[in-house]
Amino acid sequence: MKIGAVLIDIDGVLYVGDRRIEGADRALRELDRRGIPYRFVSNTTRRSRRSVSGRLQGLGYAIPEPWIITAPVAAAAHLREGGRTRCFLLTTPDARRDFEEAGLVIVEGGAADAVVVADAAGGFTYASMNRAFRLLVDGADLVALEKDRYWMGPDGLMLSAGPFVAALEYATGKAAEVIGKPSPAFFHRALREIGASPNEAAMVGDDIVTDIGGARACGMKGILVRTGKYREETVRQSGITPDLVIDSLADLPDHL
Amino acid sequence: MKIGAVLIDIDGVLYVGDRRIEGADRALRELDRRGIPYRFVSNTTRRSRRSVSGRLQGLGYAIPEPWIITAPVAAAAHLREGGRTRCFLLTTPDARRDFEEAGLVIVEGGAADAVVVADAAGGFTYASMNRAFRLLVDGADLVALEKDRYWMGPDGLMLSAGPFVAALEYATGKAAEVIGKPSPAFFHRALREIGASPNEAAMVGDDIVTDIGGARACGMKGILVRTGKYREETVRQSGITPDLVIDSLADLPDHL
Repeated sequence: MKIGAVLIDIDGVLYVGDRRIEGADRALRELDRRGIPYRFVSNTTRRSRRSVSGRLQGLGYAIPEPWIITAPVAAAAHLREGGRTRCFLLTTPDARRDFEEAGLVIVEGGAADAVVVADAAGGFTYASMNRAFRLLVDGADLVALEKDRYWMGPDGLMLSAGPFVAALEYATGKAAEVIGKPSPAFFHRALREIGASPNEAAMVGDDIVTDIGGARACGMKGILVRTGKYREETVRQSGITPDLVIDSLADLPDHL
Repeated sequence: MKIGAVLIDIDGVLYVGDRRIEGADRALRELDRRGIPYRFVSNTTRRSRRSVSGRLQGLGYAIPEPWIITAPVAAAAHLREGGRTRCFLLTTPDARRDFEEAGLVIVEGGAADAVVVADAAGGFTYASMNRAFRLLVDGADLVALEKDRYWMGPDGLMLSAGPFVAALEYATGKAAEVIGKPSPAFFHRALREIGASPNEAAMVGDDIVTDIGGARACGMKGILVRTGKYREETVRQSGITPDLVIDSLADLPDHL
């Protein structure tokens, strides 16, 4: 497979829980050695980029923070570029940092250009949802960092941002603009940073829909790893065919 | 208009806020005098039937409590009739009483036959939504007391149960069973209590969709009042034509 650039998912690809994926770091160094540029793209919306970076450092990865493209960071840049600077956030306090550092004005009410919905966890309350709803009725745009249904937490399934986005869509009749994977703009933003075009790039991830389906829909190759949330049955049911399936990121250099 | 039985909405028809609709009580006594049976049907899901009844008494209405059919009461009866006795409730503590008094088993986790969603107000939290979600994934049915989008509160629009029902539908892929208006079963339940058939009955309400549209869809006449949430524009946009529009419930006897 001839690949000139690689985008790599984080959770389930570099680590699972507190465990580093064996050989992943060696694979990244091999990409460096061959001069193949890469970036990391993640739908994790509970954490700021700084926290994601800190976690990777703690696991022994030496990855420059700007190489990590998360949905909050992409959303903050996207909103700033579009002049939608007054944002009401349904996010965790940690993810909020990405919006503050991008210079956006975080509003609690009054008027907003955008209502931004991440996986706010305990930040989803009747009061916060109602405040978001009123701002949307008053004209704010609905911006979803992701529309995932759920993820696997330490003690069972956990609701992601998607259901709360769906609630606000139902209440207002407005369709959300989705920022994270599988939005093509999210992949394009990451590719732009390394000057690569989709047709020379591959996305490596453990989610058949957002990683592989999303990548293929915008012209990239999709390489599925058998780590993280990978389940053979889920892949079969998805109707999506990866360009390549590998046991883990460690095997990537062998196929390039 | 020849009408043998009447169903009457409560909020916006008998009162608006803390103000009784003038002449409404006189109209009810006139129905009594003519021997036209009537019952009250309400989508209010924050309050137990006892609270609704107490409120009406406080406003000077002498309405027997069993004549008030609310979505929580109908849901509790419906679940008991179907043998779905283990219920997880997303309701206010007040509405919870209707389920306890119906002899249902209120569960907090473990296993449930049904996840029941009312307008839980502050009871909607990430934790309670996630618990509901896990029970649904484990096989519980999704039962919505109503799927209204919002209502007009004292200081602005307030989310109703609908958006939170939509969130759980999105998360699980399950469609909710809706109990309150405009569900035909809800109207039929009220009509059964007075031994009336839909084609001889009329529904009087201020909501063009749930009251008038719902009534007409199940063969009843729909009589819209110009009190409560009535807005000429909303009626026009709805595409629903009431059989009759009257200024308030006070005018009903003149048209029967």
